[in-house]
Amino acid sequence: MNELKSWLSIADDSDFSIYNLPFGIYSIKGGRKQAGIAIGDQVVDLVGLAENQMIDLAPCFFEHEYLNEFINLGKGVTSKLRLEVQKLLSDENSPLRNHPELLIDQKDVTMHMPVRVGDYTDFYSSIEHATNVGKMFRDPENALLPNWKHIPVGYHGRASSIVVSGVPIHRPMGQVLPKEAEVPVFEASSRVDFELEMGFVIGKNTALGDRIAADQAEDYIFGKVLFNDWSARDIQKWEYVPLGPFLAKNFGSSISPWVVTMEALEPFRVAGPKQDPEVLSYLKTKGERNIDINLEVAIAPEGVEEQIVSRSNFKYMYWNMAQQLAHHTVNGCDVHVGDMMASGTISGPNPDSYGSMLELAWAGTQPLKMKDGSERKFIHDGDTVIMRGFAKKEGKRVGFGEVRSQILPAKK
Amino acid sequence: MNELKSWLSIADDSDFSIYNLPFGIYSIKGGRKQAGIAIGDQVVDLVGLAENQMIDLAPCFFEHEYLNEFINLGKGVTSKLRLEVQKLLSDENSPLRNHPELLIDQKDVTMHMPVRVGDYTDFYSSIEHATNVGKMFRDPENALLPNWKHIPVGYHGRASSIVVSGVPIHRPMGQVLPKEAEVPVFEASSRVDFELEMGFVIGKNTALGDRIAADQAEDYIFGKVLFNDWSARDIQKWEYVPLGPFLAKNFGSSISPWVVTMEALEPFRVAGPKQDPEVLSYLKTKGERNIDINLEVAIAPEGVEEQIVSRSNFKYMYWNMAQQLAHHTVNGCDVHVGDMMASGTISGPNPDSYGSMLELAWAGTQPLKMKDGSERKFIHDGDTVIMRGFAKKEGKRVGFGEVRSQILPAKK
Repeated sequence: MNELKSWLSIADDSDFSIYNLPFGIYSIKGGRKQAGIAIGDQVVDLVGLAENQMIDLAPCFFEHEYLNEFINLGKGVTSKLRLEVQKLLSDENSPLRNHPELLIDQKDVTMHMPVRVGDYTDFYSSIEHATNVGKMFRDPENALLPNWKHIPVGYHGRASSIVVSGVPIHRPMGQVLPKEAEVPVFEASSRVDFELEMGFVIGKNTALGDRIAADQAEDYIFGKVLFNDWSARDIQKWEYVPLGPFLAKNFGSSISPWVVTMEALEPFRVAGPKQDPEVLSYLKTKGERNIDINLEVAIAPEGVEEQIVSRSNFKYMYWNMAQQLAHHTVNGCDVHVGDMMASGTISGPNPDSYGSMLELAWAGTQPLKMKDGSERKFIHDGDTVIMRGFAKKEGKRVGFGEVRSQILPAKK
Repeated sequence: MNELKSWLSIADDSDFSIYNLPFGIYSIKGGRKQAGIAIGDQVVDLVGLAENQMIDLAPCFFEHEYLNEFINLGKGVTSKLRLEVQKLLSDENSPLRNHPELLIDQKDVTMHMPVRVGDYTDFYSSIEHATNVGKMFRDPENALLPNWKHIPVGYHGRASSIVVSGVPIHRPMGQVLPKEAEVPVFEASSRVDFELEMGFVIGKNTALGDRIAADQAEDYIFGKVLFNDWSARDIQKWEYVPLGPFLAKNFGSSISPWVVTMEALEPFRVAGPKQDPEVLSYLKTKGERNIDINLEVAIAPEGVEEQIVSRSNFKYMYWNMAQQLAHHTVNGCDVHVGDMMASGTISGPNPDSYGSMLELAWAGTQPLKMKDGSERKFIHDGDTVIMRGFAKKEGKRVGFGEVRSQILPAKK
């Protein structure tokens, strides 16, 4: 990375450094939704930059309710735009310095869903998570299923119920099988859990029948967000055989509002874990395909200071994004701009790096302590779960901000 | 049903009688897409009706690429519009008789996807199908899983790869585990199968957190289509544990182009099968909730006359649509206009009423004979699968036309 400095004052620990410049959709005081870029504690008004001809795109591309139309212009255009804004924010003689009205305090904006999600797929690509789940519910000696090291296992999720950080979610009602019962009851889930994940946003369309080669897959990825895949473990247990999770997941998933581009994450590439046995040819990738992103999860009971309960890292992923996308399309399945693909729970090797309450409290056997002394096996009503993530190297920081959402009581 | 007669000449066996009037999206010779209604072997030009002020809606509602904006007007509007067109087509003094240009031969139009599908859910609601699958792959004595009679089991599918009748589908490539092998190979699926299903289209939005009561659920259903849920059994077998089918399904699903409204299907209601054990309260419905729709599947090898391989009926469904929708939203999952919900394979009680090759040829042990003497365990390259459906009562017929699609060789 070249050394860059903004003429704006940006805190050293800001996720939104001059090296980041993520895209999002914001509004001011109930006004229209529009696209912006985060810098420090400000938002750059892209419509305004365009209206003042400081960038090489017409305002209309930033006036949509979602980023899809902008992303659909292609990386040739979106990367260039990002570099133009980087220059405007770092050049001492920038014309933007004469337009303070085009920088808005983040505390004065409301953030919205950044993309219109067409389809949403969730993978299951952390070997530590899959092993933990296998140990708990299947055979500790054969925790991984036979297909796990051959397939980046994934399944379709619900796109409509993906919401942006800040939107509260009601505890779901549903069918649960009480212990040793043979007949289910209808009640509020008592095992609401988070799953620490990251999502990526598709940046380029394919047609039905097309296949994306693993080594070209990243061309189809626009950027990434933090992703909380809310789960109701008791509903899941009863419903998931044989067709997979359904109501246990689709009551809500929460994402961070700023989409961090693949370009911004480029400096933080690292090698992934060794894949053994060797994967099939269509899944082979060259070079460093994992990304070193520090992740953390905190729980804040209502009125109580938050407690960090997990510190993990995106670099632990066994299957990388290129492999996930190559697999997803190897049968000709088409993908479209705005589609969301989530990683699956990102657990690390140590018990304090697990990515769900299920694992952290080991199926309720090892409750976690909160700051007020209360214990958590799963998430209580009123609890807010906060996930954060950032990459850092040589003093340069590129972060995601946070995804924060509160669990409200069930609507009975 | 009141007796109605159109001044147009309509064949007695036409699916598109004066009692039907389904909605679809068509274009003429590469022109723009627009909404129309099928009558006999003609399409009614709704934009033209509006421009000539023969109906009570502006042309713009019919000029979209999909029916979503029209459907979103609500049943109060869409039902009234359908009745206005019914009057225009049955009234001897109809002003439409002076506008022959507003009726277009169906052979001169290209049909397109009728709706922009937001999310797609597939259920598994035929007891005969679930029992057959359980007998083949699990325990013949305990074919149904413990949750099956309590939950209208469903899972999320891929919305992007739903295509309209006539679009060919390539045989999918994928991972398959050869018999007695421990390591998968990458090859073209050799077990491509159809699934005879029906889909329903959501006609009214809910918000995240809302729940649809079973007895109000039909207010949220606009209409129905035939649905072929293409499946690759060998890919499915290797991938589906533990999170459900993924690439075995998302290489393509095919639907019939005309959406038959719930109003048109109203006269064909029948009682469903007795549900024992009793279902939970939120799944209880009153009145006749099944619909008597005759269904058939034919296979036409390339250059060979079609062979009907199955005759089933939508009335066999164990779980009805109202129950499916009540279940889907009981946890607060939101639904939106254009969402598609499919029934799952519709098998009847007799071997010639099964809804998939898997069942008809009983996992390849009882191949079916085609008109040219060739045998089918699954679908061959070049085969066209055709599904048809119609309801009939007291000489009045309301049908779906067909969904027809050819399997092309794999793209290697």
